[in-house]
Formats: sequence, C-alpha cells, structure tokens
Amino acid sequence: MDVRKLLEEVKTGEMDLERAEALLKDLPYEDLGYAKLDHHRALRSGFGETVFCQSKPDEYLVQIFKKFYERDGEVLGTRASEEQFRLVKALVPEVSYDPVSRILKVEKPGKEHTGLIAVCTGGTADIPVAEEAAQTAEYFGCAVDRIYDVGVAGIHRLLSQRERIMKANCIVAVAGMEGALGTVIAGLADAPVIAVPTSVGYGASFHGLSALLTMLNSCANGISVVNIDNGYGAGYLATQINRLAVK
Amino acid sequence: MDVRKLLEEVKTGEMDLERAEALLKDLPYEDLGYAKLDHHRALRSGFGETVFCQSKPDEYLVQIFKKFYERDGEVLGTRASEEQFRLVKALVPEVSYDPVSRILKVEKPGKEHTGLIAVCTGGTADIPVAEEAAQTAEYFGCAVDRIYDVGVAGIHRLLSQRERIMKANCIVAVAGMEGALGTVIAGLADAPVIAVPTSVGYGASFHGLSALLTMLNSCANGISVVNIDNGYGAGYLATQINRLAVK
Amino acid sequence: MDVRKLLEEVKTGEMDLERAEALLKDLPYEDLGYAKLDHHRALRSGFGETVFCQSKPDEYLVQIFKKFYERDGEVLGTRASEEQFRLVKALVPEVSYDPVSRILKVEKPGKEHTGLIAVCTGGTADIPVAEEAAQTAEYFGCAVDRIYDVGVAGIHRLLSQRERIMKANCIVAVAGMEGALGTVIAGLADAPVIAVPTSVGYGASFHGLSALLTMLNSCANGISVVNIDNGYGAGYLATQINRLAVK
Amino acid sequence: MDVRKLLEEVKTGEMDLERAEALLKDLPYEDLGYAKLDHHRALRSGFGETVFCQSKPDEYLVQIFKKFYERDGEVLGTRASEEQFRLVKALVPEVSYDPVSRILKVEKPGKEHTGLIAVCTGGTADIPVAEEAAQTAEYFGCAVDRIYDVGVAGIHRLLSQRERIMKANCIVAVAGMEGALGTVIAGLADAPVIAVPTSVGYGASFHGLSALLTMLNSCANGISVVNIDNGYGAGYLATQINRLAVK
Amino acid sequence: MDVRKLLEEVKTGEMDLERAEALLKDLPYEDLGYAKLDHHRALRSGFGETVFCQSKPDEYLVQIFKKFYERDGEVLGTRASEEQFRLVKALVPEVSYDPVSRILKVEKPGKEHTGLIAVCTGGTADIPVAEEAAQTAEYFGCAVDRIYDVGVAGIHRLLSQRERIMKANCIVAVAGMEGALGTVIAGLADAPVIAVPTSVGYGASFHGLSALLTMLNSCANGISVVNIDNGYGAGYLATQINRLAVK
Amino acid sequence: MDVRKLLEEVKTGEMDLERAEALLKDLPYEDLGYAKLDHHRALRSGFGETVFCQSKPDEYLVQIFKKFYERDGEVLGTRASEEQFRLVKALVPEVSYDPVSRILKVEKPGKEHTGLIAVCTGGTADIPVAEEAAQTAEYFGCAVDRIYDVGVAGIHRLLSQRERIMKANCIVAVAGMEGALGTVIAGLADAPVIAVPTSVGYGASFHGLSALLTMLNSCANGISVVNIDNGYGAGYLATQINRLAVK
Amino acid sequence: MDVRKLLEEVKTGEMDLERAEALLKDLPYEDLGYAKLDHHRALRSGFGETVFCQSKPDEYLVQIFKKFYERDGEVLGTRASEEQFRLVKALVPEVSYDPVSRILKVEKPGKEHTGLIAVCTGGTADIPVAEEAAQTAEYFGCAVDRIYDVGVAGIHRLLSQRERIMKANCIVAVAGMEGALGTVIAGLADAPVIAVPTSVGYGASFHGLSALLTMLNSCANGISVVNIDNGYGAGYLATQINRLAVK
Amino acid sequence: MDVRKLLEEVKTGEMDLERAEALLKDLPYEDLGYAKLDHHRALRSGFGETVFCQSKPDEYLVQIFKKFYERDGEVLGTRASEEQFRLVKALVPEVSYDPVSRILKVEKPGKEHTGLIAVCTGGTADIPVAEEAAQTAEYFGCAVDRIYDVGVAGIHRLLSQRERIMKANCIVAVAGMEGALGTVIAGLADAPVIAVPTSVGYGASFHGLSALLTMLNSCANGISVVNIDNGYGAGYLATQINRLAVK
Repeated sequence: MDVRKLLEEVKTGEMDLERAEALLKDLPYEDLGYAKLDHHRALRSGFGETVFCQSKPDEYLVQIFKKFYERDGEVLGTRASEEQFRLVKALVPEVSYDPVSRILKVEKPGKEHTGLIAVCTGGTADIPVAEEAAQTAEYFGCAVDRIYDVGVAGIHRLLSQRERIMKANCIVAVAGMEGALGTVIAGLADAPVIAVPTSVGYGASFHGLSALLTMLNSCANGISVVNIDNGYGAGYLATQINRLAVK
Repeated sequence: MDVRKLLEEVKTGEMDLERAEALLKDLPYEDLGYAKLDHHRALRSGFGETVFCQSKPDEYLVQIFKKFYERDGEVLGTRASEEQFRLVKALVPEVSYDPVSRILKVEKPGKEHTGLIAVCTGGTADIPVAEEAAQTAEYFGCAVDRIYDVGVAGIHRLLSQRERIMKANCIVAVAGMEGALGTVIAGLADAPVIAVPTSVGYGASFHGLSALLTMLNSCANGISVVNIDNGYGAGYLATQINRLAVK
Repeated sequence: MDVRKLLEEVKTGEMDLERAEALLKDLPYEDLGYAKLDHHRALRSGFGETVFCQSKPDEYLVQIFKKFYERDGEVLGTRASEEQFRLVKALVPEVSYDPVSRILKVEKPGKEHTGLIAVCTGGTADIPVAEEAAQTAEYFGCAVDRIYDVGVAGIHRLLSQRERIMKANCIVAVAGMEGALGTVIAGLADAPVIAVPTSVGYGASFHGLSALLTMLNSCANGISVVNIDNGYGAGYLATQINRLAVK
Repeated sequence: MDVRKLLEEVKTGEMDLERAEALLKDLPYEDLGYAKLDHHRALRSGFGETVFCQSKPDEYLVQIFKKFYERDGEVLGTRASEEQFRLVKALVPEVSYDPVSRILKVEKPGKEHTGLIAVCTGGTADIPVAEEAAQTAEYFGCAVDRIYDVGVAGIHRLLSQRERIMKANCIVAVAGMEGALGTVIAGLADAPVIAVPTSVGYGASFHGLSALLTMLNSCANGISVVNIDNGYGAGYLATQINRLAVK
Repeated sequence: MDVRKLLEEVKTGEMDLERAEALLKDLPYEDLGYAKLDHHRALRSGFGETVFCQSKPDEYLVQIFKKFYERDGEVLGTRASEEQFRLVKALVPEVSYDPVSRILKVEKPGKEHTGLIAVCTGGTADIPVAEEAAQTAEYFGCAVDRIYDVGVAGIHRLLSQRERIMKANCIVAVAGMEGALGTVIAGLADAPVIAVPTSVGYGASFHGLSALLTMLNSCANGISVVNIDNGYGAGYLATQINRLAVK
Repeated sequence: MDVRKLLEEVKTGEMDLERAEALLKDLPYEDLGYAKLDHHRALRSGFGETVFCQSKPDEYLVQIFKKFYERDGEVLGTRASEEQFRLVKALVPEVSYDPVSRILKVEKPGKEHTGLIAVCTGGTADIPVAEEAAQTAEYFGCAVDRIYDVGVAGIHRLLSQRERIMKANCIVAVAGMEGALGTVIAGLADAPVIAVPTSVGYGASFHGLSALLTMLNSCANGISVVNIDNGYGAGYLATQINRLAVK
Repeated sequence: MDVRKLLEEVKTGEMDLERAEALLKDLPYEDLGYAKLDHHRALRSGFGETVFCQSKPDEYLVQIFKKFYERDGEVLGTRASEEQFRLVKALVPEVSYDPVSRILKVEKPGKEHTGLIAVCTGGTADIPVAEEAAQTAEYFGCAVDRIYDVGVAGIHRLLSQRERIMKANCIVAVAGMEGALGTVIAGLADAPVIAVPTSVGYGASFHGLSALLTMLNSCANGISVVNIDNGYGAGYLATQINRLAVK
Repeated sequence: MDVRKLLEEVKTGEMDLERAEALLKDLPYEDLGYAKLDHHRALRSGFGETVFCQSKPDEYLVQIFKKFYERDGEVLGTRASEEQFRLVKALVPEVSYDPVSRILKVEKPGKEHTGLIAVCTGGTADIPVAEEAAQTAEYFGCAVDRIYDVGVAGIHRLLSQRERIMKANCIVAVAGMEGALGTVIAGLADAPVIAVPTSVGYGASFHGLSALLTMLNSCANGISVVNIDNGYGAGYLATQINRLAVK
C-alpha cells in the first residue's frame, strides 16, 4: 500500500475518510509486509515450506503435504516414517522416500545445484543425520560433497580429504560420541563450520549431550552448533551461507 | 617450498642428496601447507592471531602480545582485565582497552569495513558480550550495526528495527534469561542468525544454560548457536559469513 | 456442625454426653471444615472431583469413576487411554472420550460458560496439552478462546491475534521446543499468563526441560509456570483466576 | 494519535502531506498501541516502570532511576545494593531503601491498598524474597497480609493461620529447601497460589533446584511457579490477579 | 577359634607346628568371623537371604531361589515378574506371588510379628513401593500398620491418622511427585522416618528425582532417605530399627 | 484438655456456653496436642530447640539464642561462624564454640551419655561434618565412639576397627569423594547405618553429588542417606534410633 | 617409500620428474606411515579390526564382517544381537556367538594366552559387561582370570580373592549401583585398575551415572575409568597394558 | 612377622603365651600383609606416601609432612598453596615448591628416571595439571617427555610431534574445553592413553564436565579417563604402566 497516494486521495476527496481509516487499520501488517511474508515468503526467499512429519496426525500430514504440493509444485518433508510415506503416496503419487534420511518429498525436475557445501561425518552411524542435511541443501539448490566416516580417531582419513573440504563455502560436520570432528575441520578450513551433534553412542554420551557439549566448547574458530540430530537445520543454514557466497 | 624445483636441483646436482632429504623431511606439513598455515595462516585467511587473555600468566600474556604485535602490526586480545591492560601497556604503549567488551588491542589505522553484520541484544546486560562480537567483527574488517535492548518481552522494540536487521548479511543475536531473541529474528530475517546465549540471569537460568537450550531448540530456520558468552566466536563466524557475501 | 447448638443440647439434656463426646472427637476437622471440605469441597468451591487416569489399575479406575459420577452427576478424567474409555463405558455408558486431549468425562448438560480464557499454542503438536487445559476450563464453567499455532518463529501470526488475546481474563500459553510464546504474550497482554511447557521436541529439548527453563526465566512480567505437559493444572488455575474476574 | 483527526486535517489542508506521512510512519506501533504501550503502558495498566538494579552499571542505573522518577513521580527498583542506594540518593534524595527486600524506591504518598494478597514463608530465611513480593504488591496498590515462618515441618503453625490465608484473593508461597509449603496451602485454600522457590538451603538443594522441582510437581490443584528467588515476579502476578478480583 | 588354647597346645606339644600354622593361616577370616558371617550371617542376624529378581537370568534365578529355600526353609524375592513366578513355581510349588508388590516368596508359617512400623503413602500410585516395604518388614517379623493415600495436598487426611502414626517405632513415608509427605510426618512424630521417593509423576518429576531432592532437603528432624522406589531397602532398615525398640 | 469434663461442666452449668465454645475453638490443636507440642515438644521428646545459625541476621540470632537458653537452660547452635560466636558471647557468656564442628552451645553440666553411636569418616577432611553429628548426638545424651579416617581405599584400616563398629546401636558413616564407606560398613555391621555424603572432593565430585549418589545406590542392606554435609541431621536421627535401643 | 632412494633415482635419471613429484604428493601419509597404518595397523599392532555391531544396518554389517574375516582370517564383533548372529552365519558359517557377552566372532585356533588380566565384578548382573572385557582380552591373546560377584557390600568375598587379584598385570573392575569395587581393589593391589561402570541399578543410579561418578572420584591411587558398560574398551586397554608387562 | 618362628618360640618357651597372643591379635592384618602394607607399602611398591595438601588444616599438614619426610627421606605434596609452602618450610627447610604444578616436595637426589611417559596438553592453560602429572611421574622414577600446546584445533601441531609421542610406554593427554586430544592421540599411538579432563574453559564447559564426557565417549581404542584436573592420579597410573614396561 502506498501511504502517500492514499493521503493524496484523501486530500482530493477521491477517498472518503471512513475507507481511509479502515485501510490504515490494517497498515501495520501490510506496511510491515507480514501478510505478504506469510503468503509469499517461500517464493521470495527461495525456501519452500517444509513439513516436520514426526508425530503429525496422519490426516493432518496428508492434507498439509498435498496442499503445499498443489501450491508450490514441490514439497519437502523431514523425519517421515515408511508408514507416512505410504499414506501420502496414496494421495500424492509423485512423492518419493529415502529410508536413510527419512526425507519424503516431491521435487521439481531439472533443479540446478550451485556453490558447494561439504557434509562430513565421524562414523557410518551418523550418515542418516548427514543425509538429512545433504538432501535438504540439495533440495534448496546447493551442490553437496559427501565426505563420510572421517572421524578423528583415525585422523589420516580426515587429512586425506583436506582438499575436498577446503573447496566448500560451508562445511557441515556431523558426529556423535566424542564429537570432535567439527573442531579439527574448523582448524583446517577457512569456511564456516556447522557442527551437528548426533545421538549416536551409549552410556555417558547421554543421547548426544556429550557431542553437543564438545562442539559448543570447541577451541577452534569459525564453528557453531545446531540441536542434536538436527540435519535439516544444518542443511538449511548451510544453504543460506552458500547462497551468500554464490550471489 | 616448490617440490618440482627441488627435484630439478637434485637432478642437476645443484642440491646434494642430504639437504634434499632433510628438506623433504618437513614436507608433509609444508606440502600440506601446515607449516605455512602455521606461520602465515593469519595473513592468507585475513584473520590475525587472537589472544584469549583470561587466566593467562602475566609474563606469558605480555610476551605473546608483544610478539604478535611486532610481527603483524596489530593484535586482538579478548577477555582482558584492567590489570592486564596496564601490564601490556608498559611494553606496548599503542595498546587500547575497552572495559565493556574487555577487548585489548592494537589495530592498524584506516581499516575499511565492508558488508554488514547486525549485532542485537535482548537487554542492556547482554551488551558486554555483544560488544565483544561487534568489535571482533570490526577488527576483522566488517561493518557492524548495533541494535541493542530489543528483547522479545516488548516485541514492538524489535519490530521497529526490522528494516535495519533485514539489511545485514549475518545477524548475531545475544540474549540471556529466556534467550528467545534469536528465534524471533530468524523468523523475520533471511540472513543466517548466530545465537549467543549469555550468563545473564539468576536462579533457573543456571548461568546461561536456560538461554543455551532455548537457542538450540529454536523452531525457526537458519539459526545456530555458540558457547555461552562467546561473543568472540560469534564475531569471528559472522566475519567469515560476511566475507562470503562481500566476495 | 454447629458447636453452640451442640453445647446447648448438652446443657438441656437433649443430647447425652457420650454422643456429644463422639461428635466432638471429629470436631477438629469438622470445626475446621476439614471433613466438610473432604466431603463437600467440590460442591462448595465449584470444582468437582477429577480423576488422573494414567497408570490407575483398571478396576480401581472404573469404580472411582462410577462413584464420583453417581454422587455428583458428572466427573472429569484426565490422561485416559482408549482402552480405559472402553472399560469405563461398560459401566458408565454416558461417558465420552476425546482422543486428542485424552479427556474422559460425563458432563452435565446446559452448563453456562462465563468470563474468558485464551488458550494459545506455539505449534500444532502442542494442541493435545492445550486441549486438556481448554476442556478442563470449560468443564469448570469458563468460556475459552482457542488460538493455536501462533509460535514466535513467525511473530506476525501471533500479532494478528493480539486483540483476541487482549480480551481474556487469563491466558494459557502452551509451547514446547524453545518455549518463548509465554514471554511474548506476557509482553503484549495485561492479563496473567500461565505458561505450560510441553515435551514436544527432540535432542536438547530434553523432554520439555528446555521449554520449562525458558518459561521460568522469562523476562516479561505477569507469567508463571506449571509442570511439563500439565494442561489440566493450567486449566484449573486459569479457572480460579477467571472466576475472580467474573465474580 | 487520532487517525481520524489526522485524516481530517489532511483533507482540510491543516496538515501537509509530508508531515502526515511522517506521522503515519510511526503508526504501526501507535495503531497497535505499541508506541502507546511504550510511552504510556505503565499509566494505562497501572504498573509503573520497574528497574532491575542488580549488575546495572552505576551511571546507567542512576540516570534511568532519575528519569522514571521525573516522569512518573514514583519508581520501584529491585535487587539494589546499599552502594546503589547511596549513589541514587545523591541525585534523588526522596529515595528510600529496605536492606531486607533490597527494594529501592520512591513511592507516591497516600496510596490506597485494595483487595488482599497473603504472602507466606516456610522459614525466616525466606523473608527477603517474601518481602520483595509483598512490597512489590503494595507498591502496585494491593493490601498484603504477611504470614511468615509457617513451614510444613511444623504443620500446626500453618494450620493455625488457615483463616487468614483463606481470606486472600491470591496467595504467594515462598519456600526453600524441600519447598512443600505451596502444596499444603493449595490443598487448604481456594485462591490461586503462586509458589516461589528460594535458594535457601545447602547440599542437594542445588541453589533452589530442589524447591523448584517440588513446586512444579505439586499434586495440589491451583498452583503455579516462578523463577527461584523471583519475589518481584510473584508480587507482580499476584497484583494482576488481585486486581481482577477487586475490579 | 580360641587362639590361647591353640598356643597352649603348641606349647604342650598337643598340636604340632604344621597344623598350628595351617589353622592360623585361615585365622584372619575365622577370627574376624568372615567365613561364619558368610555361612551363618542370615541366621545370626535374623535376616534371611533375599533375591533381587529383576533382570536375573531365568535359570540362575530358579536355582538360587531353590537353594535358599532348601537351606533356610523360606526365601524372599523382590521385583519379580509374573513370568518369573511361573518359572520358580515349577520347581518350588510352595512359592506365592503378589502382583502389586512384585514379591515372590515362601514364608514359614506362624511367624510372630512384633513392634510396630507405620508405612504411609502420598497417593494410591505409591502403593506398590509401599507394599514392598511393608511385606519385607512383615517377612522379617515386624508388625506393620498401612496408612495409604494421606498425601499433603489434602493435609486433613494425614492429620486424621496422626494417632496411628505416633504409635510406630519407625515410619516409612512413600511418596512421588513433590514428595513432601516425609517432612510433614517427621514434624508430627517422634520416631525415625525413612523416606522413600517413588518414580510416580511426569514431566519435571524426572522419574523420581524431584521427590528424592525434596526428601533430602527436608527441614524436619529425624528423617533419612533411600533410593527411588527402594521399598525393600526401607523395609529392611525399618526392621533393624524396630528390633532395637523391641529388644 | 478433658473434653468429657468440659461437657459435664456445661451440663451442670459450672461452665457457661460462651466459655465452652471459646475453649473448643482451640480444641483442634489442643486436642491434637499441637499447641502443647509447640510449647513443650522439646521437653516431652527430649530434643531441645536447635538454631541453624548460618545466614541468620545477627540480631535475630542473638535474641533467639538467648531466649532458648533462658527458657531451657541450654541451647545448641549449628553452622555458626567465629563472628557469630563473639556476638552471642557478649549476651550469653556461658556459650562455647568449636571451630571444627562449628557448633555453638550452652550445655547443662553432668549430662549422662547412654547407648552407643559410632561415627566414622572416610578421610580427615570429613571430620568437621562428623563432629557436627557426634557433638549433636552427645548433646542429646548419647555415648559416641569416633572412628575417623577409615576410608575404603585402605580397607584394612576399616577392618581393624570392626569390633568397635559392631558394638554401636547406630552407625553414622561420613564420606566424600567416592563415598563407599557406608556400603562397606553396612555389609559388616547389623546396626542401621546413616550415610552422610560430604562436599569434600573436586572435579566430578560436583560438591558432594557423587558421594550422595553412591550412598543412595548402595547395594548393602540397612543404610539410608541424609543431605550433603548434614551432620546435624545424622546426629539427630542416630539419637532417635539409639534411644529406641536404650529404652 | 624410501625417500633417499627416490632422490638417487631422480639424480641418475632412472625416475623422471613427473613420477617423482606424483609419488611425493602422497608422501605426507606414506612418510608418516598413515597409509600403511591404515592398511596394516592391525597386523603391526597386533590388534585386529573390531566391528561394533549395534545399530549397524544388516547388509552393511554382514559385508564388513565377511570382508574382515576373508582378509585377516578372524574377526571380533561386539554388541551383536541373536538376529545379527543368524544373518552373519548365513554368509560366514564359522562364526560363533555368546549371548551373555553378545560377542560374535571367528577366532583363529590355537591362540596362545600370555600374561594375566583379572576381571572382577561387583555382582552377577555385571557379568555381561565383564565377559565382553574378558573375551576381548582373550581374543587379543591375554590370559584372563574371572573373579565375579565380589562386591564391597560383603567385603570378605573380595578379601578372600586377594591373592588371585594380586597376581594380575592389570585388573578390570566392573560394577554398577554404587560402583565402589574399583577403589577397594586399587587399595589392595599394585597393578593398574581399569574401572568399568555398568548401567545395572535403578532409580538414582541414573543408568550408570552414579557408578561412573564414584569411580572418577575414587580416593585410591592407580585407577582410571572407561565409559558406562564399555567392556570392550576395558579389555582392549588391559591388553595393551598386559603386553607391556609381557614384552 | 614369621608365624612359624613365633610358634617355635612358644613351644620352646622363649616367648610366653601372653606375648604370643598379643602378637597374634594383630596377625589378621600382618598375615594378610595389611599391616606390612600399611607400614611398608610405599617401600615395597616403590610409591612413597603422598600428601593431598588442599584444605588440610595447617598444623595437621605440617606434622604429617614432617613425619613422612623423617621416615622416608622424601615426600610429595600436591595442590599446595604458597602459604602452605611457607609453613612447611619453617619446619622442613629442604622443601621446594613449584607454583605452576603446586607441588611441594622433598626429593632424594640422584634419582634415576627410566622408561618413558609422554605428557601432552591441548593448550597452555592445561599446563598446571600436566605438570602435576609429569612431576608426579618423575618423582616416582619415570622419564617424562613434555609435549605441550598440541590441541586438535591446529592438528598439524600434534602431527609434527607424532614420533616423540610414539616412543612412550604410556601417554597422558591433558585437555579442557572440547577435550578431543586423547582421542586423536589414541588413534595415532599404540601405547595406553590416560586422558585428564581439565576445568579450563567457560560457559558450557561446566567446569570440565564437557571435556570429561568427550573423553569417556572417545571412539578411539586404548584410552581411559581420570577425574577432572587429576594430574596426580594420571601421573601415578602412568608410572604403574611404565614400570610394567620397564620391568
């Protein structure tokens, strides 16, 4: 809404006072662009809506998934079960499912992947979380290099991948147990490192708390942390950073 | 070291075998660039060495500070006390100290500040940590916009600053107590948000644990977390991200 | 019991000493109203007996439910399973069950709902706890306005409901994960806010601990907290406050 | 700001377009009441601004205290030290200080105190927190009945005060160590109970955590909890509830 | 063994040196009574062997149960499942099982029960733990008075049982959630109180941690605590104390 | 009060109705013995009033100490500082102070000490807590045997004291760090063991939490636990148990 | 790779510059022995590859198990389920499985066992973890003496095994609940003690946290700790120490 | 004591019965070697007595230090303050003090140091704990190689010291903050690694808890952990292991 134009119309009498007052009543949100943000944020920002599937009631999940798909032509669902996949597929036959990352999606074909994000894991058990991150970033248009099983207990495995890691605009470091992967990578590379603690481990790992604390206390520079097992959050944030570099 | 040149000199006899072997003995790190990283990393990456002053023995602090200053012409120290300032000043008279951020530094004059980082706080008590972040980013060449005391308990204060926040390449959100600032900002802005929990609070804030957990569990996209009170880490990471955008 | 009357009857001989002594033996509680409280508290205070169904042995649950129903003509059960519903229904066919709130009840028809309580949630996953609060308050005679999915990660959703929220005598704010909803609402509204942390989330949410700490550390005024997932407690307390306003 | 009047003045030419546009630029918050809230919230809601003194830099504290006093004619400061009292007194000689509650204030004379709030403590060591609650409520215009040292380890002390407690519109229960006071009171009384855990205790009290958990897990109805030692928060909330009853 | 006698026999030559040396080699344990303790402790102390059934491999459980039964004529098993009951019954048909306390036992008939232990619970959900305590004490020969569902949220229920509680030599107070029962009882009674926290509750009860901390921080005198849900431990200790009183 | 006698006097007219009603108004507590308990509990139960000195305001401490002393002729204060000793001594010159146990007391001369309590410590650093327990028990009339520095890291030290320990009616086991003393003693002795964790230690002792958990998880029979450093509580409880044995 | 030889060949022209440069490019790892370590570490160090089976996807587990077996002629798998045993057996019929230790392995026949490791447990429930340690050490060529059920609650059981324990080069002490076994053994023996906390227990054992803290806070000398239930880690470390003694 | 000889002397009358009985009274421990252990353990095992100075009362510390010195000719004190140094020096002028390690000792001259222990630190702030370990090991006769400031955030620093580390019989890895040093070293070396978490750090390091958990969850083989800041414990254990290798 153009406030100046409204005022001019009030002055000239083209718009009566009642209508002007009514329009201005909604101004706060329209002027802030909130409503537009709401309807168009995904298009403007380049991030489509995402559905966190876990624990969503079946009917609700299916409807929301269908609605987003019909509106945007694509949709990304995270933490979906095989059962949810079957339910959604009945309504949206185009949907595909990856049991490792638990990602359920319809994706527009021919998407270009730009820039570069490196996704690294400490062990093979961290791969599901890493794939959630990698596939999220790919869905949002990033090129991703997967560098798995390079944990610090065998440091040569990581060192031999140094050059691949150094090429990325942003690095996602996924690790459970002692969780030191992020620190060593941040010490080697210049790009920002997003550390993802995983709940992989037992005993005093306390379901990922150990890896989380390790990552928060990293003595390397250029590292930050997301929630335990939050591959999606890391993939999203890595995409934002990669876009800044690509722009 | 140029390996090809060395080999040619060995072939032509310009370099004898003993010396070539000795030089190659250090190759692993030189060829990997480790040694260079070590000596020159700061120059190459654009991040000078930083001194974490807290608890450093006096003599050690003064010597390391002086050495870095003599080599690089500037040096940044964090978490310094007034007492440490006096000790360093005796040897390095050019040093300056900010009692709020507790930053002790010598900075080259005429530094250009590019890009834009927004540094926001929930309350006035979070300003020391925010200043550590802001001054770190400025030291490393970033333009910084300070937006303080915009905590979510009076949401209009934050909303009125929306446009300033939206302009930044990266946003640092500093908050203690319930620590919800990062989530609200990440919901409004498209740039990556680095959340810094602070130890401001009492009782069940448990010295920043409450704010830390809040930030890790944010339901907004595009947000990651650093250690409690780690303004320096946030400023460093924000600089890395800002540089990607500026490049 | 009227002590004066008893004494007069003792004096006149209408009551013999043995009976007077026996009656006075229970006096401590009767005079204090304890026994009455016990038998009649629900009627006097307007809060009927409630049954916490979870983990109750089947037989015990069915008998207590039936007994309360026969005495009061209505009864409210919380945290009931579908299995428990079937068991109770066999004896009390009038009973109804809501699988979302897990409330099992018989309610007197034609109940008037007065005052106004607003029940808000951060996300859709918080709705079961919110419904427990809302239906509890309705059962005890309050009008309830449900305002769901207005979490602070998209602050405009909450702001657009500001006027509805401002009308309530008491606001129940239900949220998991980072749990900042209560703070933002308390900053907007003048009515008391009861914050209910939920166990919604994963990783460092630690089954609701994160939201609980957030709410306890709120920097807004006029907010208090109940146990994780305690929708019933919030609904009960909101009813007490609403009644004070209606009186 | 009266939008209608502004529009009329635009129409009649009393106000030119530039000035009208500038005024409307701030409208979002005025129309939402944000700006008014900001400037006038205290007057409208009846809650004056409060200053949390602890850790405030001296100069900042003194200025903010003076400014609020000059604007509103009264001001309430919490968690103030004796040293802060001396500093403020130099500029605002009317200020008074209570070393027990650590409240620093200037209060308008002749304030009427309405309704009734009961403030109870488990022991004498809880009195400072209780006084913060009581004096806050009195400052905001409530009548307060202090019932101290009625902890549940000697239950008859509490029972003998039952009638006084029953008269209140809202009860504040302040207790450290095992913190069971709130539960017993909520079991006796019909009014809402605000439980305040205190950091009184040692060993496994973990600085108030024990009392906090006790209060959150109360099996009584009609009780909610604020942060450890948060007497101010309890006093504020109790005032809101008391006002609903008095209205 | 009588050392003096042995020495005399050595002196007189009744015992040769080899034999005396061999006997003295075992002296440490025999003189200390360790070996006897081992074989006869149960008989001497009056406490038979007990079997903690939970997680015991089936074969091992059955054999140990049978062996104790054959040796002592009775045996007490705690935390047994129905499945374990069936397995043991196949070999030891005399065994009986109580699904509430989960106690599996063969008990000698006609046992006399002396002294008096009061076992109290806060709610009905605490009864399984209380029964473990009560039946343990009865098995070891104590008279037990069960006083259930007298939680502090309805203090009159507890007060009306005051006289029964006062008669006991030792009181076991079993409670979950806020766990304040022990404190109130210790404030009323003169006998030692053994508090048993239970894992009854949800949310911030953290599986009994809340009740445990409450009980450890009790401000009453004469109270101590055992592990969460440790009814057996409380029953054993109460028996020791009751025997001291009976002796 | 004799209720029957009162009723008879009412019947005969010896007592008028007003007076009878007034007397009965206090009946709840008098009939329950509450008021008597209150005034005379110490005398009846043989436990005089105790003052927890720590954090008590100076004036309050001095007055309460003096009052108890004047009424009972003796008084026990715990956790007193040297400064508090000086303040009290100015008013009550008979008072004595032990800097190790921090006990401040006036004790009647010629007190007989009966029964036997053994107070054991793991190390020398646990002695202050042990002395608080021992002197408390002695103040209340028990004979105490001190067996210090018998920690389980050198098990022979403990074993060599086995006979002394076996003679006690109740054993107090005071230990910090790994806190295993109580378990080993309970395995050797038949008397009840009260375990007192101390805050002695560093690092992962977490101010006594480690010892507390050890003691709660003891696999020995006949052991219970009090709060960290709670020597007084252990001494009081041991006295109760010792009296049962002596009676 | 022999660097000197390469240089000589470059000098003589036997090797051209391109090839020499290419070979040197891999030097960092070859010269450091990383690649060799990678391929041959197991052979050189005498520790074959081990497979942590828990949570490994079926196909992955079977392939990796088969591959290691084919290469090395033997393979050790830990934390395997019976289901995994069946899957592996289909491909590798030589495999054997122990349901107690959950070890799945093919082992070369005729292995010599040298030195001596003592593996002790507090109770019978700790045996699965102890067997994982014992069988791991045996697989790696150590002689093992199993000393089970010697918990400190019956100290004579442990003392009677003192001589066996004293003979070992290294002692593994496995215990849950209060976990004091390691301390008492370290106080008796001169060999290094590796303490393994187990998750055996309930309530305040917090899944092994209690035993872990006990062991970390041991006041005995010569003791260190591994993760909760980490029998494999203890067996591996004990083997390293035993080999040092045997060498 | 020679039992055979005693018996012979009894037989021959050289020793009377009373004296023989008295001597045998101490036999349990002497025959077990306990008493000898007690008096002579240090000499036999080669580990002299050590004094943990922290919190020891002054007089007690000085006496015990002097006594050990007089008996053994040398003594090692840990965690001593400068003040304690002065006090001891007054009585034992030979004593020396190192303010970094806080070790207070008198050491016999000309001690031979055998074998090799490597002591590594992550940063310079970990050096005090490392020195406690190194000087303890040297005091007990080990050769020590100090390799400081080789934290994993700059992995090349550690790699360049690989050969020195590989030579040791046992490696002590001292690190705070994220504490990953031990894992990387255990992945490189074949010798046992003793990890020492330090309390170096801030915020979510929780006084060493973060490093402790990291080390317990290490995914490398051959690593165990001691208490936070427990340099002495690591030095002692490393000595035991080094001696096994040297023997």
